[in-house]
Amino acid sequence: MQNLSEANVTEAVIRSLAGCPDHRLRELMVGLVRHLHAFVREVEPTPEEWSAGIRFLTEAGQRCDDRRQELILFSDVLGATILVDAVNNRKPSGATESSILGPFYMEGAPERCLGADLASRPGPRVTVSGRVRDTEGQPIAGAVLDIWETAPTGLYHMQDPSAPRFELCGRLRADGEGRFTFRTLLPVSYSIPTDGPVGRLLELLGRHPFRPAHVHFIVSAPGHAPVVTELYTEGDPYLDSDAVFGVKSSLLVRYLEDGREEDGTPRYRLEHDFVLERARQAAGAAPIGVAPPAGG
Amino acid sequence: MQNLSEANVTEAVIRSLAGCPDHRLRELMVGLVRHLHAFVREVEPTPEEWSAGIRFLTEAGQRCDDRRQELILFSDVLGATILVDAVNNRKPSGATESSILGPFYMEGAPERCLGADLASRPGPRVTVSGRVRDTEGQPIAGAVLDIWETAPTGLYHMQDPSAPRFELCGRLRADGEGRFTFRTLLPVSYSIPTDGPVGRLLELLGRHPFRPAHVHFIVSAPGHAPVVTELYTEGDPYLDSDAVFGVKSSLLVRYLEDGREEDGTPRYRLEHDFVLERARQAAGAAPIGVAPPAGG
Repeated sequence: MQNLSEANVTEAVIRSLAGCPDHRLRELMVGLVRHLHAFVREVEPTPEEWSAGIRFLTEAGQRCDDRRQELILFSDVLGATILVDAVNNRKPSGATESSILGPFYMEGAPERCLGADLASRPGPRVTVSGRVRDTEGQPIAGAVLDIWETAPTGLYHMQDPSAPRFELCGRLRADGEGRFTFRTLLPVSYSIPTDGPVGRLLELLGRHPFRPAHVHFIVSAPGHAPVVTELYTEGDPYLDSDAVFGVKSSLLVRYLEDGREEDGTPRYRLEHDFVLERARQAAGAAPIGVAPPAGG
Repeated sequence: MQNLSEANVTEAVIRSLAGCPDHRLRELMVGLVRHLHAFVREVEPTPEEWSAGIRFLTEAGQRCDDRRQELILFSDVLGATILVDAVNNRKPSGATESSILGPFYMEGAPERCLGADLASRPGPRVTVSGRVRDTEGQPIAGAVLDIWETAPTGLYHMQDPSAPRFELCGRLRADGEGRFTFRTLLPVSYSIPTDGPVGRLLELLGRHPFRPAHVHFIVSAPGHAPVVTELYTEGDPYLDSDAVFGVKSSLLVRYLEDGREEDGTPRYRLEHDFVLERARQAAGAAPIGVAPPAGG
């Protein structure tokens, strides 16, 4: 009979996985067990600390609903999401780098015409235009841009009951030469949700909950690997301390002044191209996300 | 500005913890980040696999209530609970070894008299008696035994709406010579709950959900480290494949036949001593558990 002890329990758990009929699942679980046990052996959590971890995960699970995903947020603030993204998106030089999807992507944004304004409230506008092309510089006709952004309140549409559904979101189809253009509000830096267990954890850790200003994009086209990415605003005070570690220098953009509205509100413009790599044998990486139901 | 990449993101996350005012929390979180990132780097989960993990944890959190703790169960079936127990309970030779608390301990069991029968339904009885003593062999007068066990249905009282509250549970106080005795039902092997995400996972892993027959004990006395343990039934078919890895050979017991009831039901007896170590400077290890509210 096996006499389980600190010395042999890890191997016993791994042996218990030997009969798993799904090779990949077995590989994932063996890795999870090895690293989880190594964590326990290294930090030697007390029973109270382990219980606190269990309570944290329980509460995080219970804070999730069709508009909120606290466990994605937890993965984000630990840098795990961006690392999963990185190991899945080792792109050829020149292709647009990926960044994290975050928990606020919602499928089903309405298609908008080229030139459309994604915002329905006052505020400084930016006109974003550019081309979608491949790594050889060839335009990708009809590429689709799925775009989403917070309002100046720091909230995405589904976080704000007073916001129109899919405000500051839209799907845009590039023209025959891969060109796109749209208007939106100048993005602002904002706080991730702090009223749940992840927010409390950040406070205990002495970390702030802010993200630098950014606009989210998923750019896709048949025959090409889609890219899930964000464009970050140069000069933002949170570029070096993004709460979810999404910033890459190739994704920094500078909004140029572009006159003023009649009421004096400044206007900006941005030219930015997205570069997709040709699809490899395997399907391109899909975004990390638990897509809320269409009615969410 | 930091340009985050696969190569440097782990160190960036660890740097973000440098300002944590709680040294121990920082140590725990740095360990978590290092091992979580090492897991990601080794197994390279796809975004879909990572999302499946997020969904698993979300669902597990949402299955928890005041009678069920699916995340403790997850920790149990990964062998993490027993490993946390092991690193916290390196006992001197001769002291009773610990085993896992499991998710079915409920505080507040009624005090019972020595000799009481914990069961209120028919079935084969076992009379358990012994002494609580220290590692020098001295009896520990007034030691308390908190005892809980499943019914022959395989369910603990809080899992079975038809069972009396705290059936097969009780708190017993040893006499002036550390002696105790009580009656209960002969324990049976049973399945952990399989109707949640952990049960589904075990099925995908090709693992059965059974635990060998056992009775749970928390034995405590002032001035001594309490022990959370279980006594396992010799010869049980699941001793070598306990779903939660709790079995230690020092915790095996043999129930001896002890005549029959008038209706022919067999009776058994067990003599077993519990040995506590003197409390060290620090408080003894408390059990791992999210204690349900007294009304649960």
